[in-house]
Amino acid sequence: MKVTISRKAHFNAAHRLYRPDWSMEKNDSIFGKCNNPNFHGHNYDLTVSVTGTIDPETGYVMDVKILSDLIKEEVENAFDHKNLNLDVPEFATLNPTAENIVVVIWNKLRVKINPDHDLEVILYETPRNFVSYKGS
Amino acid sequence: MKVTISRKAHFNAAHRLYRPDWSMEKNDSIFGKCNNPNFHGHNYDLTVSVTGTIDPETGYVMDVKILSDLIKEEVENAFDHKNLNLDVPEFATLNPTAENIVVVIWNKLRVKINPDHDLEVILYETPRNFVSYKGS
Amino acid sequence: MKVTISRKAHFNAAHRLYRPDWSMEKNDSIFGKCNNPNFHGHNYDLTVSVTGTIDPETGYVMDVKILSDLIKEEVENAFDHKNLNLDVPEFATLNPTAENIVVVIWNKLRVKINPDHDLEVILYETPRNFVSYKGS
Amino acid sequence: MKVTISRKAHFNAAHRLYRPDWSMEKNDSIFGKCNNPNFHGHNYDLTVSVTGTIDPETGYVMDVKILSDLIKEEVENAFDHKNLNLDVPEFATLNPTAENIVVVIWNKLRVKINPDHDLEVILYETPRNFVSYKGS
Amino acid sequence: MKVTISRKAHFNAAHRLYRPDWSMEKNDSIFGKCNNPNFHGHNYDLTVSVTGTIDPETGYVMDVKILSDLIKEEVENAFDHKNLNLDVPEFATLNPTAENIVVVIWNKLRVKINPDHDLEVILYETPRNFVSYKGS
Amino acid sequence: MKVTISRKAHFNAAHRLYRPDWSMEKNDSIFGKCNNPNFHGHNYDLTVSVTGTIDPETGYVMDVKILSDLIKEEVENAFDHKNLNLDVPEFATLNPTAENIVVVIWNKLRVKINPDHDLEVILYETPRNFVSYKGS
Repeated sequence: MKVTISRKAHFNAAHRLYRPDWSMEKNDSIFGKCNNPNFHGHNYDLTVSVTGTIDPETGYVMDVKILSDLIKEEVENAFDHKNLNLDVPEFATLNPTAENIVVVIWNKLRVKINPDHDLEVILYETPRNFVSYKGS
Repeated sequence: MKVTISRKAHFNAAHRLYRPDWSMEKNDSIFGKCNNPNFHGHNYDLTVSVTGTIDPETGYVMDVKILSDLIKEEVENAFDHKNLNLDVPEFATLNPTAENIVVVIWNKLRVKINPDHDLEVILYETPRNFVSYKGS
Repeated sequence: MKVTISRKAHFNAAHRLYRPDWSMEKNDSIFGKCNNPNFHGHNYDLTVSVTGTIDPETGYVMDVKILSDLIKEEVENAFDHKNLNLDVPEFATLNPTAENIVVVIWNKLRVKINPDHDLEVILYETPRNFVSYKGS
Repeated sequence: MKVTISRKAHFNAAHRLYRPDWSMEKNDSIFGKCNNPNFHGHNYDLTVSVTGTIDPETGYVMDVKILSDLIKEEVENAFDHKNLNLDVPEFATLNPTAENIVVVIWNKLRVKINPDHDLEVILYETPRNFVSYKGS
Repeated sequence: MKVTISRKAHFNAAHRLYRPDWSMEKNDSIFGKCNNPNFHGHNYDLTVSVTGTIDPETGYVMDVKILSDLIKEEVENAFDHKNLNLDVPEFATLNPTAENIVVVIWNKLRVKINPDHDLEVILYETPRNFVSYKGS
Repeated sequence: MKVTISRKAHFNAAHRLYRPDWSMEKNDSIFGKCNNPNFHGHNYDLTVSVTGTIDPETGYVMDVKILSDLIKEEVENAFDHKNLNLDVPEFATLNPTAENIVVVIWNKLRVKINPDHDLEVILYETPRNFVSYKGS
């Protein structure tokens, strides 16, 4: 009897999509306006979902306060009000597309979550564009 | 060819999270502010999803009006403007965590829905915390 | 390592639910107010989700701009500000229920999307009623 | 000491924007896609706001249940699942633009609300387009 | 040149609407389901708006961080996860209708905000019912 | 008989809050995380409202398509996917706080809107922080 609990969070960040080994023309043709060398930014909204059995003692799958604190430590403190390309080590050589960001976040949280629990992360880059990842 | 139809609903209720067999100190350490003996409350938002094949005669998986009426009878009439701990028999001895509430709702609806159809229930306790259950 | 990317879109349309081979009485009993012979209408909201592996070169599963343009061509241009029963060929003999609309949209998009990618379409008929389809 | 209470409601309807005394070309040039002779439609969302002093006996400006019932009778029953041009007498000779609809709704509600209270109506035609009217 | 800055916040609480000097029958007839003696509850959403001139040095009307902290101290800490009737002194003898709550919040914030600034508070009791107060 | 029409739009941008004539310490003490020299960013949401009388010929205060195109030209094309500090001339020497941005947008639109019409602009910097300006 598995239940999923979910917690929403958010952070604001600047980023630029490009590959340093490509010409400006090639970067523009692939990444368009997202290749602005002066960066642009987003309010990223996040939903983290953890699936497991209900602990009969507490009635919780996992205390949502613990999940919320974990997201704060691993994601908000690391990414909020940052430039993803310049300030966040995971993107030093990794293009910060929404797809790559969601995988980085999932990997950071996966090692902190009970291995018996399943994990899914949804990341909204804008209200109309979002990505999700569940580890496979 | 299976399609899922979903209907949103909501109810307002008071509740308290605690175990009567635990001390006040232990309840506070596990349930924090949710252990207020005078109760607190929420606007619970609900999404009920039913998955099945489209009836070629009507073009419906299930008439959403029938689903909406069923949610009204089984969930809204039973839980809305109630104290979950004191007024709702299912929680007389069951801690009304979001996880336990979503399983209770799923069980109440499951017996009223065509057994050929799959059922999932999502319950928002706050706009940022929600749970989901699909029966296994 | 599969990631899902999603894009939201919308269109406004009029429709009527009925079967021409049924009497007005039977249509009323099954389709209620949706059988108004003068039509009624909705703001349909759409979420299109594509699942696949991340291209290591670009960091994209699929360029969301290409997905957005595809939705515009196949769905918005075909359905927006239209009468689904009278103006859209797919519904000439198919009842435009939400279930049938979501399958029609899925079929139109499926042939334009990389066959290695999975596709899911969610269609909101109202903010509280929605349907989803992923092809099986 | 004036407080404003507000209630949200909604209805679905079909409509067409045009003037019968203009040519099809002129109607197209002014009303664009909204001039589709087969109609299109919307989920209209409504916020009705009533401003007045708090009744010291009840703590209410106006019982929101009474306001909600009034909106149901005057607006939802009259407009929901209707073709505004063909089924609603107020638009027999009045173009059902969002501006004209919000004034019609305000006039219908104004005569039913305590004359000591101020009234404002906001009408969403789509999630991104809306109009408001407060009577002057 | 006056600009308005707004901050959203929220709290969860239980309450009951009734007058102890009225009979149960009279309370039921006026307050309906809200008169449940075991209480019910809501997720209250709050928007606090402060209007003033832009400080040319900082570009701020008021630092939104200071406004956010003030709402936390005066409103969230006082009301969140509380029973408004039993735990909050302001409602010991005042019926906690949305109208009365919004005035209480406004009064608590008014004395903490620069007197040159205008103040408005909007309080959502449910997603469809809300009230607002600006002090006159 | 004045009606207000409103249109929502959005843009994504990077920015940094600071004064070049202040030390890094003073900037940090006033602007906190917003003073990151590498910038951060937001999805800015915009509501533009125009108030005037209904044209009896068309039933419009102003064609919302014209308003939408104007916002696209003056705001979205100028600000979207830009670094406000480095790419937008208006902020070359003006700190891009939400308050200053909303006044700049209002000024750009005011000269393009019928002088008989009133204009208000609301700018969301995050879903919980927003500002508004109506010109006085």
